[in-house]
Amino acid sequence: MQDEPNEHLVRAGAFSVEEREAVYRAIRTRRDVRDQFLPDPLPEDLIARLLQAAHSAPSVGFMQPWNFLVVRDQARREAVWQAFCRANDEAAEMFSGERRDSYMRLKLEGIRKAPLGICVTCDPTRGGPVVLGRTHNPRMDSYSTVCAVQNLWLAARAEGVGVGWVSIFHQDDIRALLGIPEHVEVIGWFCVGYVDRLYDQPELALKGWRQRLPIEDLVFGEVWGAPLSAAFDRET
Amino acid sequence: MQDEPNEHLVRAGAFSVEEREAVYRAIRTRRDVRDQFLPDPLPEDLIARLLQAAHSAPSVGFMQPWNFLVVRDQARREAVWQAFCRANDEAAEMFSGERRDSYMRLKLEGIRKAPLGICVTCDPTRGGPVVLGRTHNPRMDSYSTVCAVQNLWLAARAEGVGVGWVSIFHQDDIRALLGIPEHVEVIGWFCVGYVDRLYDQPELALKGWRQRLPIEDLVFGEVWGAPLSAAFDRET
Repeated sequence: MQDEPNEHLVRAGAFSVEEREAVYRAIRTRRDVRDQFLPDPLPEDLIARLLQAAHSAPSVGFMQPWNFLVVRDQARREAVWQAFCRANDEAAEMFSGERRDSYMRLKLEGIRKAPLGICVTCDPTRGGPVVLGRTHNPRMDSYSTVCAVQNLWLAARAEGVGVGWVSIFHQDDIRALLGIPEHVEVIGWFCVGYVDRLYDQPELALKGWRQRLPIEDLVFGEVWGAPLSAAFDRET
Repeated sequence: MQDEPNEHLVRAGAFSVEEREAVYRAIRTRRDVRDQFLPDPLPEDLIARLLQAAHSAPSVGFMQPWNFLVVRDQARREAVWQAFCRANDEAAEMFSGERRDSYMRLKLEGIRKAPLGICVTCDPTRGGPVVLGRTHNPRMDSYSTVCAVQNLWLAARAEGVGVGWVSIFHQDDIRALLGIPEHVEVIGWFCVGYVDRLYDQPELALKGWRQRLPIEDLVFGEVWGAPLSAAFDRET
């Protein structure tokens, strides 16, 4: 084991103003897309770039616990959609009155409309029984996988591709449909397709479900509950 | 509730080639920084931009379950470091022989060296007892918080700022040090500081701990285990 692989330490300063703004634009304009998918198929090389971006994510102990199942087949996506519908009926039961009416009017999935589905999974056995950094937090492997998801999502925004995260399903239904081993966690089903329009704010805010919280209320200085004097720009 | 807030649907195509490359450069060159932190303090407006990037993350049911505790005080960071050391001694016990020697030589934290610590937490009660999209996967709130982490991490890369994720601690130790309520999950402690050099590959790979897995082995087509014909560029 090398102690100091110095020849691999390379210059890494701040990006140019334009590059920095591109990164922030991806972060700021990314949306959880439900309905704006175009039917055009995605080229192979674009899909490969999105998956490479995901695979560039950090992972606890470098275990890289993720897998990506790329699903184009319409019958298979239809079966996933039916699993979603069963779970969604159960979810709607959790709300009552006007809130349930609102819930039923939301378009919660683009499983059938998006030309591509990507099922992202986490294999907790990937790095052997002891993983560096996971001993005190057994969820670190799934957290690594979510970092891969967010990489893919931001890369997709830059490519003009929308992504929608579907979490309303029973894991066993999705495992059965895609042949996923029982010990592997299904992190999410992602609807993926070209978009030419996106909402300028989160859809749930625009549709009155829940509004954005003021960032000042979420940031503390030194200890929980103490304000931080930071220059937040309310416009961004 | 509005059914179709069309005036909020705005044009959102692909970025320019240069902008797209900036996003991919942030994703590709981001590192989990352990030791390269410079002591220079971070300006308030830069910290605010990083936190705004985090707050732009997707969240299940738009619950925005995250909080960010910005810790600059040296004595407090020293106390966090001591909590890390206690946990790290326990973690080292999980390895034996040469593997334990390797573990002990890794620099696993920059808690004292980085001028700033950010503790990121997840409050599962933020959105009330029933959260849209969380019913079938109770971990969706912490996954949303991890999306915020990855946003912050990529924004930091573009700003010339390094980030290191520390997961080796007992949650109760960190809660006690920072006054975090018991029902709130500590997602991670993040060491944050300017960097002018970064490794050109993940540090754990360079130091022989574990190598990058071939992406072809992690991507399947249609069902688990079936190869996907995608044009992966092995150089990226």
